[in-house]
Amino acid sequence: MIAYFNGRFLPKEEIRIPVDDRGFLFSDSLYEVIRHYPGGLFRPDAHIRRLNHGAGHLSLSCTDFSYLIPVVQDLVHQNHMEKQDALAYIHVTRGCAPRNHPFPVPAPDPTIYVCVSLFDPAARARQRNTGIHAITVPDIRWSRCDMKTTGLTANVLANQQAAEKECHEAIFVRDGVLMEGTHSNFMAVFDDTVTTAPLSNYILGGITRDTVLGLCRNLGIRTEESPIYQTRIHLASELMVTGTTLEVTPIIVLDGRPVGNGMPGPTTRALQAAFTECISF
Amino acid sequence: MIAYFNGRFLPKEEIRIPVDDRGFLFSDSLYEVIRHYPGGLFRPDAHIRRLNHGAGHLSLSCTDFSYLIPVVQDLVHQNHMEKQDALAYIHVTRGCAPRNHPFPVPAPDPTIYVCVSLFDPAARARQRNTGIHAITVPDIRWSRCDMKTTGLTANVLANQQAAEKECHEAIFVRDGVLMEGTHSNFMAVFDDTVTTAPLSNYILGGITRDTVLGLCRNLGIRTEESPIYQTRIHLASELMVTGTTLEVTPIIVLDGRPVGNGMPGPTTRALQAAFTECISF
Repeated sequence: MIAYFNGRFLPKEEIRIPVDDRGFLFSDSLYEVIRHYPGGLFRPDAHIRRLNHGAGHLSLSCTDFSYLIPVVQDLVHQNHMEKQDALAYIHVTRGCAPRNHPFPVPAPDPTIYVCVSLFDPAARARQRNTGIHAITVPDIRWSRCDMKTTGLTANVLANQQAAEKECHEAIFVRDGVLMEGTHSNFMAVFDDTVTTAPLSNYILGGITRDTVLGLCRNLGIRTEESPIYQTRIHLASELMVTGTTLEVTPIIVLDGRPVGNGMPGPTTRALQAAFTECISF
Repeated sequence: MIAYFNGRFLPKEEIRIPVDDRGFLFSDSLYEVIRHYPGGLFRPDAHIRRLNHGAGHLSLSCTDFSYLIPVVQDLVHQNHMEKQDALAYIHVTRGCAPRNHPFPVPAPDPTIYVCVSLFDPAARARQRNTGIHAITVPDIRWSRCDMKTTGLTANVLANQQAAEKECHEAIFVRDGVLMEGTHSNFMAVFDDTVTTAPLSNYILGGITRDTVLGLCRNLGIRTEESPIYQTRIHLASELMVTGTTLEVTPIIVLDGRPVGNGMPGPTTRALQAAFTECISF
């Protein structure tokens, strides 16, 4: 598989990170995962905008990564994936410097790593069709979840907790409020209104979340960006997670209890159908 | 400089991390920094115990890293640092696997990286002698600060905030309580009692913190492990930070206001003198 590293295209296996890279030492780094559908990338501009936003907050020496869109397209082409389902992974670190907490002076060049991999859509389609089981876990993450940094230890531990209970996602609960999943945003349907956590420093501004809220408007489905309280979650008729790999996936069991009638609901189905149209290139 | 990587001794510059290493991708990794004084390592057993504790909480495939103590000693020897001031850095990741949140099955071998570097004690001695300026910052870190993971983005950002104000450390304040520094523990003297945050999931159990509390007992200085409230911090006669590189360093100015009479105080001086005896090999 051909990948991209600091301006060069080379086999992924040959790419190695120096041990003084601040991404490795300090999680001083950001990432993006972009979905490639047969025919094209899904909203690469939005992913790059979010990456630039994070790079600005981290004061990286580069805060415009729009040149990576043609790099990703080139990788799709070089790896003959134009007609395939694939994921592009972008990883940007502050760069290399002797280990010391504050930003190095002068600022090093960021480390840029981009790869693509084939994505099996069949397993995901089954999940979208039948729905998944999920658990809630305490949100022990930091308070800047709007930045997509590689500091993902809490996400890994929560996802592992879900896996050990044969569930597919864990939803973080902060102060009694269901915020988002370990790699997805979270939505609940109360009285035919699609409700999701408001954008804040506590959740990632998901590209799919944004797309789905737009689809709701198009379909005339009411939306509300407001806290989803754990004490009211049993009143939701439908629950779903949204994300680059999950698209719109219903949760049919949360913490062992069926959601609604235990089947994917009509709002979820309508949003799935509308989302499928978005990704038809 | 000779370093250690997955069982081999080799020049540090030759060590490279594969891009599928979970330390790089997920901060799924732990580290330790051990001080070497001319004559010996400072409490390497305590550092390894903490590393093992973290490895257990992360369910790494290895949870006993005591074999790394002779590795560190070997590196000190191979790099001719026996009579020098130096730092040993240990970094352990879950290992390499295709990117996916839950723990890989089967569990990969951990990635083990150890290096040593010379440490200039003169600059630190000046800081210990004259004291440092520090700021307080909101504690935006996650809730498992007892694990020394490489998810250090918040520490980097806080330390940088301090640097931009020409300060040497930032003290994290969580819910109105001063917890610890970005790479140090924090102590305050109230009415001749050395007070520091109790061990919890919100602070790292510092080796130097532990040593200093022991020295207090030896010296007949009262200690208290209880919350240090921001509303009472102006009542402290002395403030100090403790850590592997900072040892016992007085804070003489916090958030622009002098601490006590603006000079290192008698309790700090007594603890510094006692600490110096601990490190005389």
